[in-house]
Amino acid sequence: MVPRYSRPAMTAIWSPETKFRIWFEIEAHATTALAELGVVPEEAARTVWEKGSQAVFDVERIDAIEREVKHDVIAFLTHLSEIVGPEARFVHQGMTSSDVLDTCLNVQLTRAADILIADIDALLAALKRRAFEHKSTPTIGRSHGIHAEPTTFGVKLAQAYAEFDRCRERMVAARREIATCAISGAVGTYANIDPRVEEYVARKMELAPEPVSTQVVPRDRHAMFFATLAVVASSIERLATEVRHLQRTEVLEAEEFFSEGQKGSSAMPHKRNPVLTENLTGLARMVRAYCIPAMENVALWHERDISHSSVERMIGPDATITLDFALARLTGVIDKLVVYPENMQKNLDRLGGLIHSQRVLLALTQKGASREDAYRLVQRNAMPVWRGQGDFLTLLKADPEVRARLSGEELEALFDLGYHLKHVDTIFRRVFGTA
Amino acid sequence: MVPRYSRPAMTAIWSPETKFRIWFEIEAHATTALAELGVVPEEAARTVWEKGSQAVFDVERIDAIEREVKHDVIAFLTHLSEIVGPEARFVHQGMTSSDVLDTCLNVQLTRAADILIADIDALLAALKRRAFEHKSTPTIGRSHGIHAEPTTFGVKLAQAYAEFDRCRERMVAARREIATCAISGAVGTYANIDPRVEEYVARKMELAPEPVSTQVVPRDRHAMFFATLAVVASSIERLATEVRHLQRTEVLEAEEFFSEGQKGSSAMPHKRNPVLTENLTGLARMVRAYCIPAMENVALWHERDISHSSVERMIGPDATITLDFALARLTGVIDKLVVYPENMQKNLDRLGGLIHSQRVLLALTQKGASREDAYRLVQRNAMPVWRGQGDFLTLLKADPEVRARLSGEELEALFDLGYHLKHVDTIFRRVFGTA
Amino acid sequence: MVPRYSRPAMTAIWSPETKFRIWFEIEAHATTALAELGVVPEEAARTVWEKGSQAVFDVERIDAIEREVKHDVIAFLTHLSEIVGPEARFVHQGMTSSDVLDTCLNVQLTRAADILIADIDALLAALKRRAFEHKSTPTIGRSHGIHAEPTTFGVKLAQAYAEFDRCRERMVAARREIATCAISGAVGTYANIDPRVEEYVARKMELAPEPVSTQVVPRDRHAMFFATLAVVASSIERLATEVRHLQRTEVLEAEEFFSEGQKGSSAMPHKRNPVLTENLTGLARMVRAYCIPAMENVALWHERDISHSSVERMIGPDATITLDFALARLTGVIDKLVVYPENMQKNLDRLGGLIHSQRVLLALTQKGASREDAYRLVQRNAMPVWRGQGDFLTLLKADPEVRARLSGEELEALFDLGYHLKHVDTIFRRVFGTA
Amino acid sequence: MVPRYSRPAMTAIWSPETKFRIWFEIEAHATTALAELGVVPEEAARTVWEKGSQAVFDVERIDAIEREVKHDVIAFLTHLSEIVGPEARFVHQGMTSSDVLDTCLNVQLTRAADILIADIDALLAALKRRAFEHKSTPTIGRSHGIHAEPTTFGVKLAQAYAEFDRCRERMVAARREIATCAISGAVGTYANIDPRVEEYVARKMELAPEPVSTQVVPRDRHAMFFATLAVVASSIERLATEVRHLQRTEVLEAEEFFSEGQKGSSAMPHKRNPVLTENLTGLARMVRAYCIPAMENVALWHERDISHSSVERMIGPDATITLDFALARLTGVIDKLVVYPENMQKNLDRLGGLIHSQRVLLALTQKGASREDAYRLVQRNAMPVWRGQGDFLTLLKADPEVRARLSGEELEALFDLGYHLKHVDTIFRRVFGTA
Repeated sequence: MVPRYSRPAMTAIWSPETKFRIWFEIEAHATTALAELGVVPEEAARTVWEKGSQAVFDVERIDAIEREVKHDVIAFLTHLSEIVGPEARFVHQGMTSSDVLDTCLNVQLTRAADILIADIDALLAALKRRAFEHKSTPTIGRSHGIHAEPTTFGVKLAQAYAEFDRCRERMVAARREIATCAISGAVGTYANIDPRVEEYVARKMELAPEPVSTQVVPRDRHAMFFATLAVVASSIERLATEVRHLQRTEVLEAEEFFSEGQKGSSAMPHKRNPVLTENLTGLARMVRAYCIPAMENVALWHERDISHSSVERMIGPDATITLDFALARLTGVIDKLVVYPENMQKNLDRLGGLIHSQRVLLALTQKGASREDAYRLVQRNAMPVWRGQGDFLTLLKADPEVRARLSGEELEALFDLGYHLKHVDTIFRRVFGTA
Repeated sequence: MVPRYSRPAMTAIWSPETKFRIWFEIEAHATTALAELGVVPEEAARTVWEKGSQAVFDVERIDAIEREVKHDVIAFLTHLSEIVGPEARFVHQGMTSSDVLDTCLNVQLTRAADILIADIDALLAALKRRAFEHKSTPTIGRSHGIHAEPTTFGVKLAQAYAEFDRCRERMVAARREIATCAISGAVGTYANIDPRVEEYVARKMELAPEPVSTQVVPRDRHAMFFATLAVVASSIERLATEVRHLQRTEVLEAEEFFSEGQKGSSAMPHKRNPVLTENLTGLARMVRAYCIPAMENVALWHERDISHSSVERMIGPDATITLDFALARLTGVIDKLVVYPENMQKNLDRLGGLIHSQRVLLALTQKGASREDAYRLVQRNAMPVWRGQGDFLTLLKADPEVRARLSGEELEALFDLGYHLKHVDTIFRRVFGTA
Repeated sequence: MVPRYSRPAMTAIWSPETKFRIWFEIEAHATTALAELGVVPEEAARTVWEKGSQAVFDVERIDAIEREVKHDVIAFLTHLSEIVGPEARFVHQGMTSSDVLDTCLNVQLTRAADILIADIDALLAALKRRAFEHKSTPTIGRSHGIHAEPTTFGVKLAQAYAEFDRCRERMVAARREIATCAISGAVGTYANIDPRVEEYVARKMELAPEPVSTQVVPRDRHAMFFATLAVVASSIERLATEVRHLQRTEVLEAEEFFSEGQKGSSAMPHKRNPVLTENLTGLARMVRAYCIPAMENVALWHERDISHSSVERMIGPDATITLDFALARLTGVIDKLVVYPENMQKNLDRLGGLIHSQRVLLALTQKGASREDAYRLVQRNAMPVWRGQGDFLTLLKADPEVRARLSGEELEALFDLGYHLKHVDTIFRRVFGTA
Repeated sequence: MVPRYSRPAMTAIWSPETKFRIWFEIEAHATTALAELGVVPEEAARTVWEKGSQAVFDVERIDAIEREVKHDVIAFLTHLSEIVGPEARFVHQGMTSSDVLDTCLNVQLTRAADILIADIDALLAALKRRAFEHKSTPTIGRSHGIHAEPTTFGVKLAQAYAEFDRCRERMVAARREIATCAISGAVGTYANIDPRVEEYVARKMELAPEPVSTQVVPRDRHAMFFATLAVVASSIERLATEVRHLQRTEVLEAEEFFSEGQKGSSAMPHKRNPVLTENLTGLARMVRAYCIPAMENVALWHERDISHSSVERMIGPDATITLDFALARLTGVIDKLVVYPENMQKNLDRLGGLIHSQRVLLALTQKGASREDAYRLVQRNAMPVWRGQGDFLTLLKADPEVRARLSGEELEALFDLGYHLKHVDTIFRRVFGTA
């Protein structure tokens, strides 16, 4: 976790204080459930709640105990017994450390997922607003970085909206993947703990009981979670890359907002660099990479080994904090993006009408030319334009073979921008439900 | 694609013959839709269907044309016009190559997904059968590779069942991700093709129309698809690793079926190696790795670039064929797995009763010992047993501090295997809906 | 392996014919060495060489045997005995399959490395030629996609040359990593085979003996090999990305060669797309991804497990064939790259002189302005130019605060392109040893 | 960076204090070089050194400035001018931020490499000591987790030694990769700074000048560096996995040292888990994953974009700190590893002599049996032993077909452990140069 790429709400989820609070809640709920089942005294459960709820867990004290016993949950329980007193011996009855650790991790991940979903919602809102603002702003569509045919800037943003809308759905599914609770004992047989304890704690922590845990919650769930984050990061990279391209000196159709006082370069004062989206590109690489160790974590040995733990101590915070930051940063970029419709128009005009070539091709075909002939006719008039030698419409008009099939008026009608944008409403209705 | 790790049904999806057949269907359906809209003559659509349906597309001929024009779809269309005749000029009207390519890829991926889902179903069936067969076969549960507490072999398989059941759900979701059709023209604006053509083709090809395509179907869909395959592969690795462990000489609780005539080693004739599950471990690594380029494919430039294409020509077949093979191989392994309950019992007995230590610990606590004292008492009697110096029950009975709290009879009662297995039915009901 | 991304020489290395020929050579050399040590009859070794050297190994026959015995080396040995006759029983004495398999793989990988090194040499030659051709062709240097300061196109290519020169060194080191021979028996103790056999075979196959093999050559070697390929692929991606950027419609400073008859788009006949370099970008993703399973292969169990094998059957050919193809394709792109110096000049002039801003900044500082003041002065004159409102030099001349420190003549002198290119010779000497 | 997986010396390299100190040194050396060239006053360089050497850079102050100017190097230079006074305007003359940042990063990485190399040296020392200690400790060699033939525990460790010796060489090469200095200005043309400044600073910082930098040091260097770390991590995983296997309850040939007071499990007091090596397995996954974003960083746009920066802010510290910790932890594990030679012997005896099967096979062949016959004879006597039905030697003696070729005495001689260990000295000499 790098502070400059972190936001407080997400970071707080991963603080030791939050962790110990969740551990306490799991242990205390389990004690209550055990009391209800008559396994431990009701009084004990009450004492645990009373003393524990008021207590501030002393992270340094717990760390000190852990250095001695080399076991984090035992260290916490020892500290808890310092707070609760003798009744603490009824805590953790029949449970194993992983019952606490894994349920806690899942609580943290679901909370992280909630923030990430809210982040995507904010991004979607920004995208929608800007998409409608530029629904009819014409811009060139590019394939291979080469001008193709016109579209609108709103359509570009609508595509991003649709993509992040899918990401939202995926995040909701990913959240469901890891929203489980396991209180099943040393190898998951409930030998020393009634399954009803698990059901109780699950309900209280707003999780579902894990059908079969084997000391651990199975890690295919977490693999799917982090893989989903990796896909969301890849979509961030796509939109960030689009902005980076648009801000290129030669394109300059949009720019990241550049605040007063900001310095683009220590050496070249005129520069306005797309540093936020470049930064997002890098952050996306990180979030993406984390999915590999998460997947390698799945094949734990037998009922469990602890190799997943060091991985999750890293990627749990790192992936969620980084993605949260990236989504928020991207939302800011989109929200404040400076758009230059006039430059879009300038770029549209750059190719001397070549962007209408397909339409000419189709018209020739419809007038009876074979596909091959039409292609040849269009290409021979397109090439000089491409080399900067003339205007496409003029050349076509001057080509007798073309004119044999299309009148000057017919040719002119083919060079109409509106023709390309007539279905923008359809696209918007599909994406936003309304145009 | 390595033939030895391939099965014919999946491989056939990726043959040029299948691809050209799908291309034909997409083009022909589009032509029909265009005819219904009055854009092209109905007669043309009929001719295309009639001639094309009977034709066998000549892969070598198409390749030869492609070598010249360096464009695969144009090569196909040229060949199609050789088959269909002049009416072929009405084919592909207003469409762009990607309309065909991307829709075809998605058809192939959905078919691949269907096979993979069926593969998982077969694996689930095998797991279920063997799980019920061994529902009550006691075996030691292990954490960290160290004996922990008893479970049953059926519970192990039930956990695998639950895991692959989740994988099935994920595959269904992954299939939905890529089951879309795009016929939207050069930059996705439907400039030259009515969106109703896309809707028609989608319906016929059993896909959903892509809300916004920008020449290409957005690659976040494919990233999610291949990420899901990677997670399934990781679950395969987990179960394969379990079998590999169980077949170790020192453990030998289960073995891959070893056919007559099979040779385990060219040098050591006695060896029976878990080569199938080791092979699966390697195959899982491959399927997992493919998710990285799939994710890197998301950030195409502007409306599209073609960098995704070479990746998909490789991982499209490689990931699906390998995963199909791996799932089928794993199903075979589970189906024919030779299980040695007597060895499981022998291993259970190996630790001289230490596996009951937690239960003793709990009993001591319930009899009033502090957690710390109970831990100390158990550990001091466990350690000699661990070193092979005696039997746990005997030592406990001889420890006066233990006996101060627990009678010999009470101690004996704590060494009961049934105690550990009493909730197996609960677990089975959760997983299979029935015990 | 996808045929369209394969070249014959590299593909041939991975054919079954080549593999069986290498197997034969290893077995035959080992037999000779055993004969020299008196373990087997000299006559046997001679017969093996005579009959085996002339034989064409029947791949289908070997496959048929393998289907029965489920062991590839045994299948080959069985076939060899069909060819050689009873003397064949002296072949493979004291050896284990991996002795053959691993040594063969390393022979294949060193041959592959030789081709890759030759590929890089060809690329270096192309880069050098074009670099000198354009040593003095001015072009704008860009950071963040934004115009920065002038450089030359030759310097761009010199950087690529230096990068691939490093890649060459890495490939040489990678080749050394895997150029080892292991003939050490079942667990690498030479129990049944004298270490001198390994030394003999190593010498004959131009490899070094593996210091400690444990049935297998340790896979950290192969991990390093494939990691190196992944880095080379990343450098390919960098240069490919550069070309893609240069070919953008708005930039158009260079273009991939576009042959007569080639069609850029089925829909838009004017398009010239950088499809080769986009393709290279995708291929780079694949080669990069293969390093992950190669690294996962390192942690084999104990003396060996066979999980690496399926991985290597895939990435052995796939990574080397793809990288070979990619290097050759990139060489072709560079070799035939169409360069537009006039467009480079046009782009250089685009920013109205802003690219000289740092020089103005420095001059102001040298004339006594504080860094902050100088920055402010430059920025306030740069911003209108950035917005298309005027020419930088004109504005500076009109700014009294600037003029207080710099005369008009001094300002003009700062706008000299030669100033930026004066160290090009130094760079070339560093890279090529000569300017 | 997770504190529990960090060691202070490596962590200190990545502190802001260290970073600003290195920045200062680069800037101050550059100022000296500029003074020597007569570009800035000698007095200025002296003042910078005098004031800066004594100063403690105020990290919070620099951060506060950065929040305003949004540029880290400008923030530092502003703070430096607060310390140095007006002479500070001569600092950073003609340089660009990346000159400082990239050179600093490389200083940090070379220092990190030095620690990592020292870590490997410590690991090698531990491996060597234990290897010689157990040079003649017989243990079973296993392929596929199945007993194969005897080896010694020392040979196992010798193999690890040879592997980490290779890792050391790789780290030395990796260090060389990133030990470069770039002071080349905005696009690497030295327009505003003499190349001799770079040469001077390089010499002072013990780096080599980067032949062609384009504002940035090319990232193929860093990709290679992190790829090398990933390979080292994979070797760590291998050795860690070996220990984990050896500590399994059923194997128990070695154990991580288990200190007094350490608790293995909160629930099962007898357990001694290989938690250190499991932890190493997880850490290896992380270090490995970092190579992917490092490779994705190579393809920066044109002369540079800043997408690599966020990646390196993370993996720079994370990869080096984690690997340093892991190497040190592994050294501790090896150093204190509790080895159980008696258990190794017990396991060796477990298969009733089957481990000598290959030798019997060879002897039969040498006595004239065909390979196929010998195999059949061995296998039919091995199978009952495998099933626990008898002892291999006894069965062979009772098999008439075997006895037709081998006498009882000859058979007995084949069951000699020394036969397998006779070349241990050769192996040790190869690895350690001495036996």
